[in-house]
Amino acid sequence: MSRNAVQESLYTTIFGTETRAGKTFDVTLIIIILASIAVLMLESVGEMQAKYGDWFFTIEWGFTLFFTVEYALRLYCSPAPKAYAKSFYGIVDLLAILPTYIAMLFPGANYLMAVRLLRVLRIFRVLKLMRYLEESNVLLAALKSSSRKIFIFFYAVMVLVTIFGSLMFVIEGPERGFTSIPYSIYWAIVTMTTVGYGDLVPQTDIGKALASITMLMGYSIIAVPTGIITAQMGQQMTTQRQTTLCPNCSKPGHENDAVFCKFCGSELSQKEKQT
Amino acid sequence: MSRNAVQESLYTTIFGTETRAGKTFDVTLIIIILASIAVLMLESVGEMQAKYGDWFFTIEWGFTLFFTVEYALRLYCSPAPKAYAKSFYGIVDLLAILPTYIAMLFPGANYLMAVRLLRVLRIFRVLKLMRYLEESNVLLAALKSSSRKIFIFFYAVMVLVTIFGSLMFVIEGPERGFTSIPYSIYWAIVTMTTVGYGDLVPQTDIGKALASITMLMGYSIIAVPTGIITAQMGQQMTTQRQTTLCPNCSKPGHENDAVFCKFCGSELSQKEKQT
Amino acid sequence: MSRNAVQESLYTTIFGTETRAGKTFDVTLIIIILASIAVLMLESVGEMQAKYGDWFFTIEWGFTLFFTVEYALRLYCSPAPKAYAKSFYGIVDLLAILPTYIAMLFPGANYLMAVRLLRVLRIFRVLKLMRYLEESNVLLAALKSSSRKIFIFFYAVMVLVTIFGSLMFVIEGPERGFTSIPYSIYWAIVTMTTVGYGDLVPQTDIGKALASITMLMGYSIIAVPTGIITAQMGQQMTTQRQTTLCPNCSKPGHENDAVFCKFCGSELSQKEKQT
Amino acid sequence: MSRNAVQESLYTTIFGTETRAGKTFDVTLIIIILASIAVLMLESVGEMQAKYGDWFFTIEWGFTLFFTVEYALRLYCSPAPKAYAKSFYGIVDLLAILPTYIAMLFPGANYLMAVRLLRVLRIFRVLKLMRYLEESNVLLAALKSSSRKIFIFFYAVMVLVTIFGSLMFVIEGPERGFTSIPYSIYWAIVTMTTVGYGDLVPQTDIGKALASITMLMGYSIIAVPTGIITAQMGQQMTTQRQTTLCPNCSKPGHENDAVFCKFCGSELSQKEKQT
Repeated sequence: MSRNAVQESLYTTIFGTETRAGKTFDVTLIIIILASIAVLMLESVGEMQAKYGDWFFTIEWGFTLFFTVEYALRLYCSPAPKAYAKSFYGIVDLLAILPTYIAMLFPGANYLMAVRLLRVLRIFRVLKLMRYLEESNVLLAALKSSSRKIFIFFYAVMVLVTIFGSLMFVIEGPERGFTSIPYSIYWAIVTMTTVGYGDLVPQTDIGKALASITMLMGYSIIAVPTGIITAQMGQQMTTQRQTTLCPNCSKPGHENDAVFCKFCGSELSQKEKQT
Repeated sequence: MSRNAVQESLYTTIFGTETRAGKTFDVTLIIIILASIAVLMLESVGEMQAKYGDWFFTIEWGFTLFFTVEYALRLYCSPAPKAYAKSFYGIVDLLAILPTYIAMLFPGANYLMAVRLLRVLRIFRVLKLMRYLEESNVLLAALKSSSRKIFIFFYAVMVLVTIFGSLMFVIEGPERGFTSIPYSIYWAIVTMTTVGYGDLVPQTDIGKALASITMLMGYSIIAVPTGIITAQMGQQMTTQRQTTLCPNCSKPGHENDAVFCKFCGSELSQKEKQT
Repeated sequence: MSRNAVQESLYTTIFGTETRAGKTFDVTLIIIILASIAVLMLESVGEMQAKYGDWFFTIEWGFTLFFTVEYALRLYCSPAPKAYAKSFYGIVDLLAILPTYIAMLFPGANYLMAVRLLRVLRIFRVLKLMRYLEESNVLLAALKSSSRKIFIFFYAVMVLVTIFGSLMFVIEGPERGFTSIPYSIYWAIVTMTTVGYGDLVPQTDIGKALASITMLMGYSIIAVPTGIITAQMGQQMTTQRQTTLCPNCSKPGHENDAVFCKFCGSELSQKEKQT
Repeated sequence: MSRNAVQESLYTTIFGTETRAGKTFDVTLIIIILASIAVLMLESVGEMQAKYGDWFFTIEWGFTLFFTVEYALRLYCSPAPKAYAKSFYGIVDLLAILPTYIAMLFPGANYLMAVRLLRVLRIFRVLKLMRYLEESNVLLAALKSSSRKIFIFFYAVMVLVTIFGSLMFVIEGPERGFTSIPYSIYWAIVTMTTVGYGDLVPQTDIGKALASITMLMGYSIIAVPTGIITAQMGQQMTTQRQTTLCPNCSKPGHENDAVFCKFCGSELSQKEKQT
């Protein structure tokens, strides 16, 4: 099936960001997404729901229809509809409309868990906004490149909180609030991450001593992953400088924001830059 | 209008810091600013206000008149009064005196919100102190140069707290204190930033599990922006830069071995190099 | 005693990870370890223990017998059984089975401290999992290489919390909850590590001022060890090192351009350089 | 006055750490310091004081006499007694004995503030321990070299908490616990440093929004000083490598733990190394 002019034009507007129409579309979409999230939040406030419940119902259907049309158009004009449907943003776009339709199928009590879940899942529309901030990819890439190290750090923290939580269960015991090992592990996480709710605190002297060790450990070991990630990023930035060569004089060492070669003044080819 | 000798002399004293008179003026001003902030703080203490309210009123008018004269003199002796009035410190200087005058126009009940706000806005005089610490500009520059990255980090954190907060609203629900999505997002922020007030804590087992994930995430991802900022600063500090500007596009920040401008490709004049 | 074929084959399966059988064994072991920890956690929940206590007892014996056989086989097939038994994982493997046997010797009341401790010590089986994540060694190495610096940081923090805690004891005193110096030091640790349970807070104005200083100090000094560790790691990662050992003193870690050993001054043999 | 043999010998034992006698003296002193701190801590526990008060009194006098003799001997054998008396450790040594003597002059009620202060000041003996950990100087040097930056960070944080605290005072007001500006600033410090006691939390919606901004700011800006300090330390470590030259071949770039030149194998002069 060959693509026609309508599809091409729609594609430039909906997926592109260079044209005037594309920019207008994007700004409109951002505003509508934010509005739909705002409505969802207001809806969750008891008094608001009691007072304006009917309005919210109507407005929400308006948003859902708009996002449904948007999703249909994206499928229609995309050169590879299947790839889009399976992509991260394709799934997010689908999830943005599904809950309202499913909720329609199960009418009834308003605040049952399942219904509330469906209503709230619409909050994932916030992910649609990520498309509009290029740099969010930089952060995601940074998280991804260090994900293995962060995972190991998680793993080490998990082992530590399991051990500290279990010891605390033995020391304080159910009679002082540490009712089970999983709950004691929850305490250890609250303590080690330095959150410290204070809903569960040690009461014996040994318990306080162990809690102190847990805190000091949590306070100190955060320096290790920070160090690893920072060192790696510093190296990545240096590598980037070393691997960007001038197409004219082949010299490396250009800064990341350089457009022209600092040695011969010729323009640096954009293809070779990977910033 | 040509500047006369009085203006020149005042300018050196008020804006300058090299002369003896300039230094005396600066030290006096710092002491008066600190005194005015101290008075404002004491004024906010109920018992103090009840006891010494009249004294505070008189003293505050003294401070306001002093700062009014200072502002007038700065405007008078500045070679570019308009530019000063529009500058950051010009606005701060004006804000330091306005609240007292406006409060005079609306006498009456002492602790109404609006009046309290006007009284407290005088606290911004603290910003006048920033003029006297050169290095505060270093920190501001550091914040500015990494503001885009910090903003993206903020954005990512906002998306995460929106999702975690909403899920928590579904799991715990209004019957356990999570009365609305905005309030649940507040909980998510308190938890993710590892503040952990403890005024709102999960009570179900699933809620505690989700809270644990939120905490561990907040504890870990702080390493990413720290890493990015540190790596960038490290590179900036290790790169020796010329003090010269590009003769064509006037942009600074060229490395020592640069012969051509990295922004526009024109040759950097060797005479202007000073390193 | 020469090793026979059975020992060799078992060794490849149990200690190795390259063969198909070895991988199957490892995956099975991981699942059983996780299952045994899960059972232990459920066992600690009062209601579960009351309901399924007998089942847990039987299952736990199953796990213990399995780990006993595993330990025996490891001892049998290891080329150096004594070295294995004394190694970190050898001791962990032994600790994974001992508590159940010891608990058998002391039957009786279920929730006495000692019995609970024995039951919970089985949680250390979680350490057996560390064998299966190579990178955990990277983290351990990072912790080890910076352990001296972290220790000094600990030491400095200990001195600070001792002083701040003692001053707080004097300021607030037993009548406001700070009943003794050790307990006040516990407060100082909770505050300085930014955990902030809130179970003990200053109530006088001077106490609040001192607490503010403690918090700001805890908030700031964390930057120092992070900085030290990060800088050291950055340098270690950027330095390209030879894989060769010094022929005289056998120390590793020489840089690529090194011709002589930096520790003993003897010439590094060029044949052994492999970079 | 020329120094005699007794003075020389005492000096080597008390101030030195190389001889066997010097080491024995140091270890003994560390044990006695720790013991005296332990006694002080036990003394602060109400029940202990009630039960063993007389014993503590006697033991404390023993410690004080011992430290008095130590101080006298240090003064006697030091080649520059005045310089020692004015040095950091000289003052610490004096402070370690003074409180007991002063307390003797003012007998009477046990738990008056002033008496308690005198008793507790003995805790500063903990500072005597710093003499025995060489690396504590490394940390102190690190803190000192970055003290200006940490101070500016403090200063910026102070400005921020003043502004946030004052705004919160206006928003929440005395009727919701924010009784005065200083107390609201205390809240801002508790929040911004991510300690989060929870003894004072915002209750209005605007208050919660402002608190969220305060938390996110505190969570993010910690990355800036960490970045600055880390970058500076990295540079210091590089500089150290560059400025250590081999006395034989004059080449720079030796690692910090190098004893021999890696290029020519000659020993690096210890005088030129500054680690």
